[in-house]
Amino acid sequence: MNTFGKNFTITTFGESHGKALGCIVDGVPAGLTIDEKFIQSELDRRKPGKSKLETARKEDDKVEILSGTFEGFSTGTPIMMVIFNSNQKSRDYDNIKDLFRPGHADFTYYHKYGIRDYRGGGRSSARETAARVAGGAIAKLMLKTIGIKIESGLCEVDGIKADSYDFDYAKQSKLYALDQAVEAEQEEAILSAKNKHDSVGGVVLTIAKGMPIGLGEPLYYKLDAILAEAMMGINAAKAVEIGDGVASTHLKGSQNNDEIRPDGFKSNHAGGILGGISNGDDLIVKTHFKPTPSIFQSQKTVTKDNQAIDFELKGRHDPCVAIRGSVVCEAMMALVLADMTLLNMGKKIEHLSYIYN
Amino acid sequence: MNTFGKNFTITTFGESHGKALGCIVDGVPAGLTIDEKFIQSELDRRKPGKSKLETARKEDDKVEILSGTFEGFSTGTPIMMVIFNSNQKSRDYDNIKDLFRPGHADFTYYHKYGIRDYRGGGRSSARETAARVAGGAIAKLMLKTIGIKIESGLCEVDGIKADSYDFDYAKQSKLYALDQAVEAEQEEAILSAKNKHDSVGGVVLTIAKGMPIGLGEPLYYKLDAILAEAMMGINAAKAVEIGDGVASTHLKGSQNNDEIRPDGFKSNHAGGILGGISNGDDLIVKTHFKPTPSIFQSQKTVTKDNQAIDFELKGRHDPCVAIRGSVVCEAMMALVLADMTLLNMGKKIEHLSYIYN
Amino acid sequence: MNTFGKNFTITTFGESHGKALGCIVDGVPAGLTIDEKFIQSELDRRKPGKSKLETARKEDDKVEILSGTFEGFSTGTPIMMVIFNSNQKSRDYDNIKDLFRPGHADFTYYHKYGIRDYRGGGRSSARETAARVAGGAIAKLMLKTIGIKIESGLCEVDGIKADSYDFDYAKQSKLYALDQAVEAEQEEAILSAKNKHDSVGGVVLTIAKGMPIGLGEPLYYKLDAILAEAMMGINAAKAVEIGDGVASTHLKGSQNNDEIRPDGFKSNHAGGILGGISNGDDLIVKTHFKPTPSIFQSQKTVTKDNQAIDFELKGRHDPCVAIRGSVVCEAMMALVLADMTLLNMGKKIEHLSYIYN
Amino acid sequence: MNTFGKNFTITTFGESHGKALGCIVDGVPAGLTIDEKFIQSELDRRKPGKSKLETARKEDDKVEILSGTFEGFSTGTPIMMVIFNSNQKSRDYDNIKDLFRPGHADFTYYHKYGIRDYRGGGRSSARETAARVAGGAIAKLMLKTIGIKIESGLCEVDGIKADSYDFDYAKQSKLYALDQAVEAEQEEAILSAKNKHDSVGGVVLTIAKGMPIGLGEPLYYKLDAILAEAMMGINAAKAVEIGDGVASTHLKGSQNNDEIRPDGFKSNHAGGILGGISNGDDLIVKTHFKPTPSIFQSQKTVTKDNQAIDFELKGRHDPCVAIRGSVVCEAMMALVLADMTLLNMGKKIEHLSYIYN
Repeated sequence: MNTFGKNFTITTFGESHGKALGCIVDGVPAGLTIDEKFIQSELDRRKPGKSKLETARKEDDKVEILSGTFEGFSTGTPIMMVIFNSNQKSRDYDNIKDLFRPGHADFTYYHKYGIRDYRGGGRSSARETAARVAGGAIAKLMLKTIGIKIESGLCEVDGIKADSYDFDYAKQSKLYALDQAVEAEQEEAILSAKNKHDSVGGVVLTIAKGMPIGLGEPLYYKLDAILAEAMMGINAAKAVEIGDGVASTHLKGSQNNDEIRPDGFKSNHAGGILGGISNGDDLIVKTHFKPTPSIFQSQKTVTKDNQAIDFELKGRHDPCVAIRGSVVCEAMMALVLADMTLLNMGKKIEHLSYIYN
Repeated sequence: MNTFGKNFTITTFGESHGKALGCIVDGVPAGLTIDEKFIQSELDRRKPGKSKLETARKEDDKVEILSGTFEGFSTGTPIMMVIFNSNQKSRDYDNIKDLFRPGHADFTYYHKYGIRDYRGGGRSSARETAARVAGGAIAKLMLKTIGIKIESGLCEVDGIKADSYDFDYAKQSKLYALDQAVEAEQEEAILSAKNKHDSVGGVVLTIAKGMPIGLGEPLYYKLDAILAEAMMGINAAKAVEIGDGVASTHLKGSQNNDEIRPDGFKSNHAGGILGGISNGDDLIVKTHFKPTPSIFQSQKTVTKDNQAIDFELKGRHDPCVAIRGSVVCEAMMALVLADMTLLNMGKKIEHLSYIYN
Repeated sequence: MNTFGKNFTITTFGESHGKALGCIVDGVPAGLTIDEKFIQSELDRRKPGKSKLETARKEDDKVEILSGTFEGFSTGTPIMMVIFNSNQKSRDYDNIKDLFRPGHADFTYYHKYGIRDYRGGGRSSARETAARVAGGAIAKLMLKTIGIKIESGLCEVDGIKADSYDFDYAKQSKLYALDQAVEAEQEEAILSAKNKHDSVGGVVLTIAKGMPIGLGEPLYYKLDAILAEAMMGINAAKAVEIGDGVASTHLKGSQNNDEIRPDGFKSNHAGGILGGISNGDDLIVKTHFKPTPSIFQSQKTVTKDNQAIDFELKGRHDPCVAIRGSVVCEAMMALVLADMTLLNMGKKIEHLSYIYN
Repeated sequence: MNTFGKNFTITTFGESHGKALGCIVDGVPAGLTIDEKFIQSELDRRKPGKSKLETARKEDDKVEILSGTFEGFSTGTPIMMVIFNSNQKSRDYDNIKDLFRPGHADFTYYHKYGIRDYRGGGRSSARETAARVAGGAIAKLMLKTIGIKIESGLCEVDGIKADSYDFDYAKQSKLYALDQAVEAEQEEAILSAKNKHDSVGGVVLTIAKGMPIGLGEPLYYKLDAILAEAMMGINAAKAVEIGDGVASTHLKGSQNNDEIRPDGFKSNHAGGILGGISNGDDLIVKTHFKPTPSIFQSQKTVTKDNQAIDFELKGRHDPCVAIRGSVVCEAMMALVLADMTLLNMGKKIEHLSYIYN
């Protein structure tokens, strides 16, 4: 169950403090130029330690392609990418190996599997998302050939909301803030929580521009359903909205329906999806991240033997996971759209003649 | 792409105004007592026309099992259930066959497939959810054998929120209201919109009690991710929250972490899931439904030939799809949990000996 | 596990003596003309009772489409086809309900599931292949649009081999014999066994002409591998050969390699597949069917309670299942090729621009 | 399409002359002792250069586990294994980069993908089977815990057949011969062909002992069907037989039916499978391998530009691929049985209570 997608798939492996992590990307059409610098640049956007808003851990996240390309092109065979771990300090985790950190997967992994790699959360660590970003980068390269572009940024931190969205600004912002006007306030909230050994939540807005009409496979592989799956599966995600999402439930039908005119939709409450299929308008998805469960205050929990214990976490952690989470949201959206792009190719009988006749 | 699930699956078929709709439920363990009355009673809860809060369409939704059972038990072979359509008035749709209703899937189905069964929305109609409810009923029967129980109700209508949740009350409420104190106000909101030929949104709360620890398959078949997929895939759903969801992003980590004690979790902000795996606490999921796109006011749209047109919808429609949507939410949760129950069985090596040695 | 295929799929249901059997065909591109007469004619080729070489059971196998078409075309939604059972004589099976017929699935179904629909073999009956033939007919309709044609016939009965293959002759032969010269001898062998209350085996040759280069998805969805799966999954199949198959193992490499010239391959030992991918030459597959296990001599077996018993089977059965099996082989090949056709569409990056730009 | 299996899966990557090859094994139950020495010993059995009957290429095939284990046990997370390539001589392939070797996948890969890694056959090389053997080793470790043991050997080389089968002897034979009496003759046939710059075919017999009743998932994931898929998907395989296979088609039903007695089946023509489900008897599968297409005589073919050309292959190749193929057959059978073992666990409703109550 470590594979995502149907025709364009990513299968990931690796634990936070194991030898390596990475992925196999399968289903990439042959003949795609594999821009390794772009892939690395995507990983660099996600890697920790770029500012004091992030964990102080330094991980190079240097990616290497071991298969699937030839003379710079994809060959149609599986592309394997590996990132060797270099900065693991397993000792940091000695004090948690026999207890379950609140808000973490320790408790459930231990009970489900009867064994747990406690070092850095093992497989449940957000470190695994590096593999998703690598795979998402290849998906982006493919989507670019048909004009689809994905962007993201933070539209909310600790309840402080962006009033306007500037995706270009977000690219240069330390916290990928969409609204420069509230960026300082958002940063202050993060640092204030960090100083109190606490953490905050945040909301990521992810969009896709240049969407074709027709992506999404009803009824059980709808575009919105799979985007919800993709986003909710990211570590710490607790809610997903498509288009106006929660707000649309407060509108009347007459307000929420997007009027259609010969030159297109007059509004985009729907977030670019109708009936689970893209309508050509921009795709709009919001992902809500809970505050980082790793805090440095004393917490009550139990040991593996179900004994009550008070403990204080050590180590280095992001005070707001939504920041780096935004890069992962882009990757997941790219993976979904790449898959939907391939699946949609055989949906009209006339398409077959384009390929075979 | 009309199959949902991996080991316990449902494959549905049928259009709103076709001859029949139904489903094949596959992966049901052999030896389960198939209570046909229970299945029909679930369909009766979903069927329209039970009150003036719902569409006036009368559909019996009489379900018939054509395969997969023998002498009252499941046999391990696929269970096929069919519901023949009896109350289709295709003529109602003559005036929309050449145009795209705003907020509906008409536009996207036509462009994706090049052909569209316009009668009642064809395959994109919420009528298909009857098949999900039938399949969900079998999932519930299976889950009952291991003590899992699923319930639901409306926690919000047109912005009017429930203050407390009473799932038993919801069962008898015309609008499946969770809070009797606001039920009248919610009903009034629905009827007021209906009288104005408009519609309202609503929010469904779905829970599962008696959860075992361990359901959910990281990393790409996590319980929360698949629940999000399941709920977002229901007609008109626009947002899904797990546990505190959106609200959790406004908390600090120290507030949001659920303390663990020898007798269990002290709170349930997480909604019963940690790291994509059930933690034994109640499962809590909120699904937000947009206002019904079918309204009876004049609307602007375009024809198949992209000509501007003003039109007024005819026919009979729910003024608040969340009401009957709640029954579908239960079904989808049941399908997810049944699948997760089977997938989890092989997760510990010692489990193999329970079956084989 | 009652679904076959990835993008073009068939999900079947139904037992031999249940109310109905049928299938859902999913992934059919929209806009395909659904020729219902052709589908019925395929079922008519498979239905029993056409000659004394087949079981005397009369089943009309009248197929009805319940969903997925509109005004004669496929719409991209799942096509459901049902065949209601009309000629079941369950009483025939009273004497076998508590014992396991040798060579049949009674023993394994009972032990796997703990319950068994003994009437006519229940789900394990070859009667289910009617559903495959219905699905295969739709696959054939799709393949026809790109010039692929599938044919079959018997190349061996009870060890009597065809010397030459005439697929046109096979169409009119009572036993679908490929070689008129040995047809009488083959027929005599069948009738002789029948008269002795025994049965014979046979071998079906199935071919596809007009093959494009490129069908088959290495490494684990190779064309030859999936054809082997498809054919071996037919009731009573015990061996599958691709191209020269068994005979190729007796050749030297210098004899077996198919020379390639500018105008094509000079021989076809490979059976049209290299590296799991079609090479444009005719596809050649042989499927070996064991003698029908249903014989009318006294046999030794055990009861459900593991008591030794001698019994004599009653009822009506084919003395050589390979005859009607040939129609099923065609259907399975068609299903495989339809799936491979869709999967192959996204294998070159330039193909994306055909659809999207 | 580089993933095999449903619940216990292997996803492989890598080309013959790329940086590395390997696999991700997913679905392994947690708590399994991962014996790395055993895994390496399996790879050693498959690696080339052990005798003059095999290619002279020396590849260490040193396997390294990068994830999924902790303190010697599986953790339930994906197990990634990598083999770095060390002995690639890409120059050997300069003379074939612009032409298609007869009997190889060069022609089909080029036409399907429009690009081809010609070095050693790239992804289509049998070198990839090392990854399968690594994955199969883990499957064997799992199967061992429930008493299933898989063995193999050559029952035929260049038409010279074994009269009796001794799986213990095969283990020590250079050509994994099952019958010592014909071993010398078989070896002579291989060397004779090799001296003539030619190659021979062979047949591998693979068996599983200690089988439980019940493995196999009708109707489209039957044990025999999936074994056929697994075996036919191995490089150079052209035919697969279950039990008596081809020979069973020459028997009468009265001869071929396996009599059932209170102490078990009296014969095993069926090869341990009835109705696609294991019957508890030994599993018997024969896989036929064509003669190695890599021969060192002058051959006629065409270039990428479809020009006629005569060429002579260089390099080092096995004169009989069936020898090392036998190790791959074992691995594939192990992977199939591991998957079937997990899938079968949820087939009876009473099994759920073993795990959950």
